[in-house]
Amino acid sequence: MPTTATPASPTAAIVLAAGLGTRMKSRRPKVMHAVGHRPLVGHVLAALAALPAGQRPDPAVVVIGPDMDELARTVAPHPTVIQAERLGTGHAARQALPALPESPGDVFILFGDTPLIRPQTLSAMLEARRAGPAVVVLGFRPQEPGAYGRLITGSHGLERIVEARDASPEELAVPLCNSGVMCLDGARLAGWLEGLGNDNAKGEYYLTDIVALARAEGLPCAVVEGDEEELLGVNDRADLALAESAFQARARNLALAGGVTLTDPMSVHFSADTRLGQDVTVGPFTVFGPGVTVEAGVTIKGFCHLEGCTVEAGATVGPYARLRPGAEIGPGAHIGNFVEVKKASVEAGAKVNHLTYIGDARVGAGANVGAGTITCNYDGFAKHHTDIGAGAFIGSNSALVAPVKIGDGAMVGAGSTITEDVPADALGLARGRQQVRPGWASRFRAAMRRLRH
Amino acid sequence: MPTTATPASPTAAIVLAAGLGTRMKSRRPKVMHAVGHRPLVGHVLAALAALPAGQRPDPAVVVIGPDMDELARTVAPHPTVIQAERLGTGHAARQALPALPESPGDVFILFGDTPLIRPQTLSAMLEARRAGPAVVVLGFRPQEPGAYGRLITGSHGLERIVEARDASPEELAVPLCNSGVMCLDGARLAGWLEGLGNDNAKGEYYLTDIVALARAEGLPCAVVEGDEEELLGVNDRADLALAESAFQARARNLALAGGVTLTDPMSVHFSADTRLGQDVTVGPFTVFGPGVTVEAGVTIKGFCHLEGCTVEAGATVGPYARLRPGAEIGPGAHIGNFVEVKKASVEAGAKVNHLTYIGDARVGAGANVGAGTITCNYDGFAKHHTDIGAGAFIGSNSALVAPVKIGDGAMVGAGSTITEDVPADALGLARGRQQVRPGWASRFRAAMRRLRH
Amino acid sequence: MPTTATPASPTAAIVLAAGLGTRMKSRRPKVMHAVGHRPLVGHVLAALAALPAGQRPDPAVVVIGPDMDELARTVAPHPTVIQAERLGTGHAARQALPALPESPGDVFILFGDTPLIRPQTLSAMLEARRAGPAVVVLGFRPQEPGAYGRLITGSHGLERIVEARDASPEELAVPLCNSGVMCLDGARLAGWLEGLGNDNAKGEYYLTDIVALARAEGLPCAVVEGDEEELLGVNDRADLALAESAFQARARNLALAGGVTLTDPMSVHFSADTRLGQDVTVGPFTVFGPGVTVEAGVTIKGFCHLEGCTVEAGATVGPYARLRPGAEIGPGAHIGNFVEVKKASVEAGAKVNHLTYIGDARVGAGANVGAGTITCNYDGFAKHHTDIGAGAFIGSNSALVAPVKIGDGAMVGAGSTITEDVPADALGLARGRQQVRPGWASRFRAAMRRLRH
Repeated sequence: MPTTATPASPTAAIVLAAGLGTRMKSRRPKVMHAVGHRPLVGHVLAALAALPAGQRPDPAVVVIGPDMDELARTVAPHPTVIQAERLGTGHAARQALPALPESPGDVFILFGDTPLIRPQTLSAMLEARRAGPAVVVLGFRPQEPGAYGRLITGSHGLERIVEARDASPEELAVPLCNSGVMCLDGARLAGWLEGLGNDNAKGEYYLTDIVALARAEGLPCAVVEGDEEELLGVNDRADLALAESAFQARARNLALAGGVTLTDPMSVHFSADTRLGQDVTVGPFTVFGPGVTVEAGVTIKGFCHLEGCTVEAGATVGPYARLRPGAEIGPGAHIGNFVEVKKASVEAGAKVNHLTYIGDARVGAGANVGAGTITCNYDGFAKHHTDIGAGAFIGSNSALVAPVKIGDGAMVGAGSTITEDVPADALGLARGRQQVRPGWASRFRAAMRRLRH
Repeated sequence: MPTTATPASPTAAIVLAAGLGTRMKSRRPKVMHAVGHRPLVGHVLAALAALPAGQRPDPAVVVIGPDMDELARTVAPHPTVIQAERLGTGHAARQALPALPESPGDVFILFGDTPLIRPQTLSAMLEARRAGPAVVVLGFRPQEPGAYGRLITGSHGLERIVEARDASPEELAVPLCNSGVMCLDGARLAGWLEGLGNDNAKGEYYLTDIVALARAEGLPCAVVEGDEEELLGVNDRADLALAESAFQARARNLALAGGVTLTDPMSVHFSADTRLGQDVTVGPFTVFGPGVTVEAGVTIKGFCHLEGCTVEAGATVGPYARLRPGAEIGPGAHIGNFVEVKKASVEAGAKVNHLTYIGDARVGAGANVGAGTITCNYDGFAKHHTDIGAGAFIGSNSALVAPVKIGDGAMVGAGSTITEDVPADALGLARGRQQVRPGWASRFRAAMRRLRH
Repeated sequence: MPTTATPASPTAAIVLAAGLGTRMKSRRPKVMHAVGHRPLVGHVLAALAALPAGQRPDPAVVVIGPDMDELARTVAPHPTVIQAERLGTGHAARQALPALPESPGDVFILFGDTPLIRPQTLSAMLEARRAGPAVVVLGFRPQEPGAYGRLITGSHGLERIVEARDASPEELAVPLCNSGVMCLDGARLAGWLEGLGNDNAKGEYYLTDIVALARAEGLPCAVVEGDEEELLGVNDRADLALAESAFQARARNLALAGGVTLTDPMSVHFSADTRLGQDVTVGPFTVFGPGVTVEAGVTIKGFCHLEGCTVEAGATVGPYARLRPGAEIGPGAHIGNFVEVKKASVEAGAKVNHLTYIGDARVGAGANVGAGTITCNYDGFAKHHTDIGAGAFIGSNSALVAPVKIGDGAMVGAGSTITEDVPADALGLARGRQQVRPGWASRFRAAMRRLRH
């Protein structure tokens, strides 16, 4: 008997991200605003992707609004569907149905503006769902329950959700609130979404009503609890700042627990994908932009800005170093103050210590690049490459006009503008001959003083 | 019938600022110390100036101590009077009488060392005063009432002020305390100030006693409440730090509410007059000194220091950019890392991306200034101007010796020291011819190694 | 009758520092990790050294583990002894006996991982000990007493120490806990250490049991109380961050109390030995590494990194200035943005304002060093000296190739590479003659555009 192929994962997810977020006062969709240099919705998708293989949802369909092409590109390859009219969360979720597999197993419904949700919590929801209940709602106990819907539980699990405005005093006293996040039986999802009504003040379709539908069918529902922090929803810039702050605290603690020294933890700024090895030391006032990997034993002296770069074991960076995308700092290399490195490798043990721009270049192992050196990589039309050989010595205040190659062991005299290759072990020199005009400075000063009278 | 001219505002103010502030351990008068880069007394004067037209006091007379000329210059054009002897707040206020109009309407008496006082609170005091009471006292409810005078109120409003040391246990339990700030009937002010006695331990004249004088005349007094933060008085450096911290929190919240993204709000430092447009993004570790205006959509990448400058819409600044007074960054322009701009305009779309000093200069629209470029604006005696035309290209590591003009579309070869004008569309070049000495570097190394033995 | 010489101080100390600190996840011994740029154990030794002459312990013997040579070098000249096996605190202290004088007076036993302990507290312990009790234990009242041993006191002082796991409910309710720090009768120390047993779960010798031994001999014991903060022990990186944070708060308050202005106190990072004079102003984002002295009236504009340097009265530094070891900034001198100074003196009133590297050099009084100047101090083998005379003027973008001397009042033309001395009052110039090629730039652009098609 032939069998149908079992899908890799019977789980799917719907991420609601169509909101305009007008309180952000921004022209960008709300969920495109970043925490830890990752868009809000990217955190939610990352939490889903962090679930173990048997639980990881595929697809995770993102519901976006009209004219949100940048958002669609950002979440790709996750599929997107467009909610053209804003008729409530139930209506939004319904737009995702065509993008789901015909018979989805379990389906998560999440919100794109809650960047702090934890994989562990989602995992717990899925396990609870697989144990039987048709709908699992994520609850939490906020310090100020206020206007949140209350989760009313009984001997059969979650009985109903009561909106705060409809709640009795006893119900208002219930501390367990509705986050809106759900994990539910995918086979029944389409039916429930069709069954939602919009007979309410705003004329919208509310996802929350699914619990009532399930209970009306006699199906059990359940609650899994998360903490308040992970359910922080971002609605304005102050929320965004709060979420950033919570994210940074998590990132710092993770780094410290992994054996990183942060001289002043509060002044180090991480991205969601920053990776730091053991015994890395990071001085105060350092920013890790996206895409940074730092290996064991590296010292980052503070006031540094790193982005899209790798720093290999034992290297020293900063203070005041800027490593831009494509910078690859080799083992034991030194990058000093007021130095910018972009799309360039600085190989093992090489030194670029002061006031230098290295762009579109290779600095060979053990080479020494003097203070004030500039790789002139741009001619106004294209970028060109500079190659500095192993063991080369570039005198200070030199300009290397690319494309140009300085051979292994070659030297460049201080103050030179190098426009042609310098062979290995040769000296390249390009500067004016020094003249001295005795007494000139005193005559100049005297003339200047006369001018002032 | 001819009418006398009605004064623009019948309100006046006296700001007490004569204190030495010895606990500051400073040679500068206390109220000259700054919060948000504005002297303490400047915040109080700004709060008065922020009142609506019909409430704004004029004049606001500042009472200073002897030998405080810098303070007098700072508060100008507000008039100052000198309190030669330190005989108490009542004596200080009396010095201001000659500087007030003959028949002032309502008079505020405030303190120059409370920088956080809000215009809304002052406005509420004035409205309360205009409703009838002869004296309106600003009260507050400190977390630790301790030695503050207590405001004892009854059915007729404020009955009396009791100093903590004279208070009964019942009076000490009153949480409402005296801030010392008042708004009172200007017609009676001179009489009350004359009527104050100094029969107390210190032999000083206390403003607080005015309430007793008014009540003795059967005049009603009233209380308006402020919050504790806005009444924070600065007496030492720790207070100053607290006030700065509170000011910065206010400034951050204001920016966030206006649609600014602060990646790490706690690490952005504002001045009292900083103005940021919508969708401005500010990276971590940025300082806004006084006099900065940033238009909509600008990105400031962090580690930036701005002062006395304007940044127009869509420009990109930093990281590690220093914009000094007189820097005008045009729309869409780029100012990159380790770049200093002073008294210079960088016009639309121009790029100054790395390790450059632009001082006393114009960089024309669309021009590109290479890494390591220096405008040599100073000859030891005077500053001179550099003019870089639209679309010009300045090769890296160039020195432009001012006064000098690079024409529109002109180019300067990398490493050049330009001392004469370069016409439009021409190439200017000034550098030594390159020589190569084969094998020189290996011979040098060999010689050096021999030297060491 | 001849008398034996009384030792300068009859007090000694044992500092336990042999722990591996595996929870630090580091290859360095735990007590070598730094707070305020001083190793943890260095803070404990500094607290001992800060005791008044008659109380200061000598020697302070540090018990280290095997293979901790760097630690031994760090604490020198304090003697070290090695605890080869890890058999408990009592065993560790026993290793120190041979390094103590034959008849020590009072002996402190402290831990190398509690960097915040205060001299005042140690002094109080010693005074208590001299008043009679054989053993004085330092107690504290932690917010969460949890697993700490409880100090049970009675009419005779400290009766006994009960481990939390052996404590009755009544004993567990005692808030006073054992820090482990002791001051005890040196004459009895050896006997007690010999008398400790290891009949416990771990088979270790515990110092704490000394109290029971003393009490069994009928000797009185006592408790002195410290606060929880000063007894913070560092066991992992999060503890280290906490200790750093507490240290920085202390350092800031000390600076503020001494008349320093910190524009944004939370963003200034101190070392344990930072010294700042009155009316010094420090802007946001500044790091004081070890060995910095700043005199009165200096302004440090923020974003500065100072280490091993002195800044004399009235000088101005920054923003973005890096002063490295050996930098000596004279009175009224100016060090500006993106400037690095290393092993160099910048004398009174001299100016080094922009994008400059001054290394192994002297800048004479009143000299002006233009933007982009580099002292080329390194030839790949050795460092050489640059001497800039008083009143000299170095044009921008110059390279001074050391060894070289610019005489008093001499000038160097912008863009020069100076390889030979310039006499006093002379002009030194070394640059290519400027050529202008009319129309070259437009022809270049046209050619480039053609290339692209």
